[in-house]
Amino acid sequence: MVNLTDYVEKLKSGDRRTLARLISLVEDGSAELPEIMRAIGTATSHAYTIGITGSPGVGKSTLSAALVGAIRAKAQRVSVLAIDPSSPLTGGALLGDRLRMQEHATDPGVYIRSMATRGRLGGLAWAAPHALRILDAAGTDFILVETVGVGQAEVEVARQADTTIVVLAPGLGDSVQANKAGLLEVADIFVVNKADRQGAHEVRRDFEQMLDLGEHKAWRPPVLLTQANDGTGAGEVLDAVDRHREHLESSGEIRMRRLDRALDEIKEIALGRVRQAMEQFDDSDLLRTLAEQVVEHNLEPYAAADKLLAQIG
Amino acid sequence: MVNLTDYVEKLKSGDRRTLARLISLVEDGSAELPEIMRAIGTATSHAYTIGITGSPGVGKSTLSAALVGAIRAKAQRVSVLAIDPSSPLTGGALLGDRLRMQEHATDPGVYIRSMATRGRLGGLAWAAPHALRILDAAGTDFILVETVGVGQAEVEVARQADTTIVVLAPGLGDSVQANKAGLLEVADIFVVNKADRQGAHEVRRDFEQMLDLGEHKAWRPPVLLTQANDGTGAGEVLDAVDRHREHLESSGEIRMRRLDRALDEIKEIALGRVRQAMEQFDDSDLLRTLAEQVVEHNLEPYAAADKLLAQIG
Repeated sequence: MVNLTDYVEKLKSGDRRTLARLISLVEDGSAELPEIMRAIGTATSHAYTIGITGSPGVGKSTLSAALVGAIRAKAQRVSVLAIDPSSPLTGGALLGDRLRMQEHATDPGVYIRSMATRGRLGGLAWAAPHALRILDAAGTDFILVETVGVGQAEVEVARQADTTIVVLAPGLGDSVQANKAGLLEVADIFVVNKADRQGAHEVRRDFEQMLDLGEHKAWRPPVLLTQANDGTGAGEVLDAVDRHREHLESSGEIRMRRLDRALDEIKEIALGRVRQAMEQFDDSDLLRTLAEQVVEHNLEPYAAADKLLAQIG
Repeated sequence: MVNLTDYVEKLKSGDRRTLARLISLVEDGSAELPEIMRAIGTATSHAYTIGITGSPGVGKSTLSAALVGAIRAKAQRVSVLAIDPSSPLTGGALLGDRLRMQEHATDPGVYIRSMATRGRLGGLAWAAPHALRILDAAGTDFILVETVGVGQAEVEVARQADTTIVVLAPGLGDSVQANKAGLLEVADIFVVNKADRQGAHEVRRDFEQMLDLGEHKAWRPPVLLTQANDGTGAGEVLDAVDRHREHLESSGEIRMRRLDRALDEIKEIALGRVRQAMEQFDDSDLLRTLAEQVVEHNLEPYAAADKLLAQIG
C-alpha cells in the first residue's frame, strides 16, 4: 500500500480513485481499514446525511436522482451511497446501470457509489458509518443514503441519517407500507412518489390522518407529492430537508442524533475488532479442538466460547 | 424464573410451553439464555437438520408441510423452524396462518414455530444454532429450517443444515433463481415445485445440464419434481434426503459439516458475549463521554472503540 499519509491526503483532496478504493476496503472488511480510519481521524462531518427508505418499487433511486438534480441546482456537492444489504458481492457497478443517475455520472460535483454490506465484519451497521466518514472526508455537502434490493434494513439506514425520507407510492398496500417496517416512527419527511398515478392523493390524505391521530411532536413530518421521474417536487423535498435541518439545529436534536450514532459506531467498531481478533484463530488448533469437543458432545458451546474469549482477552 | 434444572428437564421431556418460551428467549437475546444453554449442555444432536431455501414464491412452506406429512408417515417426529430474518418482531403466530401446516398443528409428533431473528444479538447466525439446540434437546428426529419473507439469508440457513434443499419453480427466472444467491453451491437436492405448471420439466433439464457442466463431486444433487400442494413427490424428496444422509455419513463429510458449524457457533456465541458486555456500558458515563468526544471531533471512533474494549477486556 502507498504511504498512508499521502493516501489520506489524496482522499481529502477528493480523489475519486482513492475514494472508490477505500469504500471497497469497507466492503471487504479489510484489515487495513482501522489504520486508515485513524489516519482520516476527526477531520470529517461537514456533510449532511439524508436517508431515503421505503418499500421496493416506490421509486427510491429515481427520487435520489431527482434530489441530486435539486442539490446541484444550488451548486452544492452531493454523494449518493446505495447500500445493498443482501449481497456479499461488490455492487460497484450497480448504480451505473441506472438511467436517471447516468446524467449525473460525469458531473464532478456528484459522486455515486453502491456498496454491498453482507460482509464478514457485521453488515450494514458496521459498514455504513465507515463509508459515510470516508465520503465526508473526501468533501461533500450532502450524502444521500438509500438501500437497494429487497426491502430490508430500512430502519438501519434511517439511523445513519440526519433527515430520513420515507418514500411511498400509490397502489402498493398504502399505509401498510410504512407501518409494517416501523418506518412511520423514523420518518422526518414523507414523499408520495408517482403522484400522477391514481390514488396518490389518497395515500397523502391517509398519512396526514395517521399523523393527526399520532403523538404530536415538535416536528410534524410533511407529506409531499413528487413525480421523481421528471423531477417534479424534488425542490420542495429539498426545502423540507432544509426546514428539518433548521429544526434539528435549533432544538439541539441534531446533537442527540449524532451522539446516538457515535455510540452505535463505537460499539460496532469494537465488535468488529473482536471479530478480527477471532478470525486469527480460525485455523488454530485451539478453535479446531473446541469445535471437535462440541461436535463430540464433550463440551457445550458456551463453555467453548468462554475458552476462545479467554485467549482473545 | 423457575428452578433451572426443572426447567431443562421439562424441555427434555418435550414440554411445548417450555420449548416455546425458550425460543422466545432466543428471539429476545435474553440474558438468561447462556445459563439455560449451559444447563441443556451437550445432551443434544440426535436430530437431523434439513434446510429448505429458495426464492420467494417457489413454495418453500408448502413443501415443508408436504415433507412433514412424509416424515410423519414414517412415524418419525419432526420440528419446523421458520426463520424470519427481516423482522425484529416475534413471529410466533405466523405459521399458524398457513393452511397446509394447520393439518399438522394438533399432531403431537409435530412442532411448528417461527422465529424472528433481527434482534440485537447478531441475527440469524447467532439465533439459529440456539433454536436448533433447543428443538433438538426437546426430542425430535428431523428439524426442517426455512426462511420466511423476502429471499435473503438463504445461504445462512443452508449453513445450519445437514441436507440443504433448494426449491425452484417454473416461470420465476429459471436458473437465475439459484445462481444469483449462490444457492447452486449449497444445494444437496434440487426440487422443482409446481411441477404441473408449464416449464417445470425445462427447469429440471436446465439444472441437470448445469450439473453436467459443473464440477463433478462425490455427491451429485438430484433434481426432483414435486407438487407440494397435494404432497406429490414429497416421499421421493425424503428418500433423497436419506440417500444424502447416508452419503454424508459414509464419506465422513457429516463430521466436517458439523465441525464447521460448531466453529461458527462458538464464534457467534463469543461475539454475543461481547455484545452483552458492551450493553452494560450503554448508559455509562464512559460510553457517553466517548460518544461526545467523537461528535465534537476530539476523538476518532477507532480510538474510542479501543477505550471501550479496554474496559470490557
